[in-house]
Amino acid sequence: MIVVMQRGASEEQIQHMVERVEGLGLKSHVIRGTERTVIAAVGEKREHARESLESGPGVAEVVPILAPYKVASREVKPDPTTVTAGSLVVGGGTVGVIAGPCSVESEEQIIATARAVKAAGATALRGGAFKPRTSPYSFQGLKEQGLKLLAAAREETGLAVVTEVMSTEDVALVGKYADVVQIGARNMQNYRLLEAVGNCDRPVLLKRGPSATMEELLLAAEYILNEGNPQVMLCERGIRTFEQHTRFSLPLASVPYLHRKTHLPVVVDPSHGTGHTYLVPDMAAASIAAGADGLILEVHPDPERAMSDGYQSLNFAQFNDTMALCRKVAQALGKRM
Amino acid sequence: MIVVMQRGASEEQIQHMVERVEGLGLKSHVIRGTERTVIAAVGEKREHARESLESGPGVAEVVPILAPYKVASREVKPDPTTVTAGSLVVGGGTVGVIAGPCSVESEEQIIATARAVKAAGATALRGGAFKPRTSPYSFQGLKEQGLKLLAAAREETGLAVVTEVMSTEDVALVGKYADVVQIGARNMQNYRLLEAVGNCDRPVLLKRGPSATMEELLLAAEYILNEGNPQVMLCERGIRTFEQHTRFSLPLASVPYLHRKTHLPVVVDPSHGTGHTYLVPDMAAASIAAGADGLILEVHPDPERAMSDGYQSLNFAQFNDTMALCRKVAQALGKRM
Amino acid sequence: MIVVMQRGASEEQIQHMVERVEGLGLKSHVIRGTERTVIAAVGEKREHARESLESGPGVAEVVPILAPYKVASREVKPDPTTVTAGSLVVGGGTVGVIAGPCSVESEEQIIATARAVKAAGATALRGGAFKPRTSPYSFQGLKEQGLKLLAAAREETGLAVVTEVMSTEDVALVGKYADVVQIGARNMQNYRLLEAVGNCDRPVLLKRGPSATMEELLLAAEYILNEGNPQVMLCERGIRTFEQHTRFSLPLASVPYLHRKTHLPVVVDPSHGTGHTYLVPDMAAASIAAGADGLILEVHPDPERAMSDGYQSLNFAQFNDTMALCRKVAQALGKRM
Amino acid sequence: MIVVMQRGASEEQIQHMVERVEGLGLKSHVIRGTERTVIAAVGEKREHARESLESGPGVAEVVPILAPYKVASREVKPDPTTVTAGSLVVGGGTVGVIAGPCSVESEEQIIATARAVKAAGATALRGGAFKPRTSPYSFQGLKEQGLKLLAAAREETGLAVVTEVMSTEDVALVGKYADVVQIGARNMQNYRLLEAVGNCDRPVLLKRGPSATMEELLLAAEYILNEGNPQVMLCERGIRTFEQHTRFSLPLASVPYLHRKTHLPVVVDPSHGTGHTYLVPDMAAASIAAGADGLILEVHPDPERAMSDGYQSLNFAQFNDTMALCRKVAQALGKRM
Repeated sequence: MIVVMQRGASEEQIQHMVERVEGLGLKSHVIRGTERTVIAAVGEKREHARESLESGPGVAEVVPILAPYKVASREVKPDPTTVTAGSLVVGGGTVGVIAGPCSVESEEQIIATARAVKAAGATALRGGAFKPRTSPYSFQGLKEQGLKLLAAAREETGLAVVTEVMSTEDVALVGKYADVVQIGARNMQNYRLLEAVGNCDRPVLLKRGPSATMEELLLAAEYILNEGNPQVMLCERGIRTFEQHTRFSLPLASVPYLHRKTHLPVVVDPSHGTGHTYLVPDMAAASIAAGADGLILEVHPDPERAMSDGYQSLNFAQFNDTMALCRKVAQALGKRM
Repeated sequence: MIVVMQRGASEEQIQHMVERVEGLGLKSHVIRGTERTVIAAVGEKREHARESLESGPGVAEVVPILAPYKVASREVKPDPTTVTAGSLVVGGGTVGVIAGPCSVESEEQIIATARAVKAAGATALRGGAFKPRTSPYSFQGLKEQGLKLLAAAREETGLAVVTEVMSTEDVALVGKYADVVQIGARNMQNYRLLEAVGNCDRPVLLKRGPSATMEELLLAAEYILNEGNPQVMLCERGIRTFEQHTRFSLPLASVPYLHRKTHLPVVVDPSHGTGHTYLVPDMAAASIAAGADGLILEVHPDPERAMSDGYQSLNFAQFNDTMALCRKVAQALGKRM
Repeated sequence: MIVVMQRGASEEQIQHMVERVEGLGLKSHVIRGTERTVIAAVGEKREHARESLESGPGVAEVVPILAPYKVASREVKPDPTTVTAGSLVVGGGTVGVIAGPCSVESEEQIIATARAVKAAGATALRGGAFKPRTSPYSFQGLKEQGLKLLAAAREETGLAVVTEVMSTEDVALVGKYADVVQIGARNMQNYRLLEAVGNCDRPVLLKRGPSATMEELLLAAEYILNEGNPQVMLCERGIRTFEQHTRFSLPLASVPYLHRKTHLPVVVDPSHGTGHTYLVPDMAAASIAAGADGLILEVHPDPERAMSDGYQSLNFAQFNDTMALCRKVAQALGKRM
Repeated sequence: MIVVMQRGASEEQIQHMVERVEGLGLKSHVIRGTERTVIAAVGEKREHARESLESGPGVAEVVPILAPYKVASREVKPDPTTVTAGSLVVGGGTVGVIAGPCSVESEEQIIATARAVKAAGATALRGGAFKPRTSPYSFQGLKEQGLKLLAAAREETGLAVVTEVMSTEDVALVGKYADVVQIGARNMQNYRLLEAVGNCDRPVLLKRGPSATMEELLLAAEYILNEGNPQVMLCERGIRTFEQHTRFSLPLASVPYLHRKTHLPVVVDPSHGTGHTYLVPDMAAASIAAGADGLILEVHPDPERAMSDGYQSLNFAQFNDTMALCRKVAQALGKRM
């Protein structure tokens, strides 16, 4: 941590801040520049130190040096983590493909989709039973009945089931039916929920919030890891920017960035990341070229009649084509898919 | 809702979409322009209609016309709502001032702060007992012990207590001690939590998420109102943008915008909205000039030693000066404060 | 400048970077932390040093400490600058008000507007003769004929004229008619144009680009100041964010921020900053409360028939009311207006 | 264009707006919904119509239906455009690769780089002679001397030269030496400059401004096309968002989006788009998978000693590896590269 003093900060102010730094158990190094003095504070990071030091007299700003996440860090665990859940393998050179409808709507819909995506090469089935919806008047999901249909589809096809959990009360229930529990983007900083899935024995797919920084995403993962659950997949699903021609902006550089900073595998969601069916295939291929360890894609038997997210869902033929395109890229790069 | 067809859409595609629109129970009007055909769909809004229609053959886009929120809308309730909770009045020409530390740290700290902010003119006390923190290694709050200290401070000063609730399990507990329950920015779309506070009998301070649109904020309020709790205050606390010289960007135009769209009162948080103590006084004054019905401000006896948010907290003297400045603006505009 | 080495950087890499720092004529201080080593580089800032050092072996990142602007800096000139141009005074406790149409459309329009805004208390007239338009098919302004009409309106009312210059070739022509030359947001980083107005003898109103940081804005001002023109006003006119209910987001904290960093006066443009007539009055008042030294406002005799920007223009009655509102706030804060 | 009236708009207001619409030479269709009335305005688009109609009495908003660009539109010219300039071919199944240093620094540097990038498979040489720099104190380029060195490098290697023009006065000079003139991101809306390159006989590489929408980018291209120059390449180089771990966010979905909307070819710049050397290879590969018709990459013999942009430049070995990676992806997708 570097405490930068204002130009013209008095000797007394500098001395005061040196004492503050040392009072926090850190060692201080005073460096007097041509225009300003800075105080380097060395030692184990104290989380709230930065927040309070910036209020000190004569302080211009406090610049952190160390990343605040630990267990998620590649510096702590250099080997990449591979997450496995039934038929789904994500990482270690294998690209996992999680496909299915936004919402589970009926037995017919989910079974037909499970069969179709499996035939096309998907390695897991997605489908929402508990749906977080922006409006209270939107379809909220079939709840436990939806979970049962997902389990039936697994029975039928052997595909691992990935589904979202929205509330601490539902973690046990969802964990009973699902192979992977998903934390949605809106809940990325719902810390009680992160702790709850950190205490369950299912792998977790953690979606990036639409305005979350990489550091916030990794700290959210840290909440889960810190409770003892090491099976975390990070999911890039797009960020909120000024762009309006896509539902979100999909910044794929987060894939190689995360690979450098963390050992956790990275999945990309080009369905939410673009919000338009016609953009999904190319962005799925681009995700793999960027190094993604997995994809999560919305597929529906009849997107025009979907109860949610129809505008970004692929139908079965489109999913088939998308898989063929992605497989070419994966093979060119020596990945299994 | 307007279904815009692609240039060159076939007669068959247009006919197909007319049938789809009517199949949703809407009336259709086909308008043939010089370059494109559009289909206006009239009737009660069907939430998922838009999502699925956009997947139709030959459709370029679907443009919604009606706002999806209802109970929060000024069209439904033209008279502004005034929220009252003990000593706190927000709206109807009265500017409520909620002040206090980020976190409750000790009895001495909270009682001293309550006394100081009351003396300076605050009408409610804020203080976090359950703290959502980006890092699992940061101070997480005193929990129920913090709630008890807040109640003691109310006992001492008569100030209404405003404090955050992070989890459905804690709603009853927090409601037992607090006069107003706060939904933090990270939980603005934690729908189960919104429903839970919609079922409690305390007024709610609902903070805007850092990337939430006005529509999403109003729909989050709608979740609470829809459960039967009419006492909702909206809080603008800044949005995430490319700006780095402030912690968030504080877009005050949301105040007059919300006043036009909703009857709910609007509170501004210039502490989080700027992230730097020295910017808070001017932005507090600007909030009042923009028409805010209330302010929420972080105040700490010794920001340099605060356990959280020191860099954006006012000390007692700074809070006094801020109140004097704001009062001048409020009086000039004929508001009580 | 602080060179942060990667965790586990070798002694050889550290030594290499020390040599690189010293090769740039800077003094180095090596600080060995518990997890990482950092090298503080002290001396006059070399602009491209940072860019190249970050490519060094074992380097994690390079953190700058000094702001790169100089002449614009309050550290160099602590006293606030007041800009005066005929009837217009901006700064030093006086709030200048620049009002008029987006585009000069006709003699009748500009003369009528000049009279009306003067009567309501404006101290300068705005109006575009050269119009930068997003589309080549939009009205591009009356060019020199527009400048002549502005000069006629000054003749008639005594109001100083503020108008935009879009091209280096036009600087002499615009300077012949205008009292203040404006650099539009789209040209904030048109460096040849900045240099050209830096060499003319007219004060400059420099608008912030919609995605410019504060540092970029101050460096753009530095281009002008550096050519010898000290009369620069900065203008906050809103930034591009995810918000769609306003044309831009108007982050008023830039006003107190700039007041701390620079001696140059700050003008706010709530017309472009909101994009909707009904939001302008409250945001004009908020700008003054935030400490603005001036306002620039779009006013048109008949916004419904304006050739550009009708949706954000005030008519004469609305401008009168806005001035009355703003004057109350200015007086409450001890400002002249 | 759809004029949406406010709920409760009077019959008189609706009638007034119908007359306004018809006064603009458009045909009106009034549609009375259950909650609101909308007026569809049909006919050739009148650019400023929207701007002024929104000021009408009782109007809630005006929703445009047609895109305002024409010549750039795929609806006008369905066949994709291929741009050819000497050795460089961009589009039509061929991926052009433009590589070279940020700035031309010396004869040795540019000749060595030209040879190296040619050997690795680049089809054009980039290099800045006129450099737009955020700070007036940064290196501003070798100007005409730089252009001569670029021409010498072309002489030596046969590579087409791509270089930036910053000012209308320099268009003829730059056109004399360059095969392709580049409009930098900061000048994307410098309309006089767009018109000037629209009148020269060189193909143009038009970079997207960091906060430009797709519509603004296409309208900027329209300025060039409209002057009679049909050889325009669009370049995605990243947008400004809240993300700080990259210099810009690179939203690759703009590639398939532009391919649907325009016939112009699309080049991607992963060097500026990420700002970090280690992210460039994966993002170059991802760009090709997303469908890019070309890449522009910064390559320097010794990035650690570059006079600009060292932190995002590849050295020769890194460029070689990047080309090998990209070629695998291009071949898998049936593209020439």
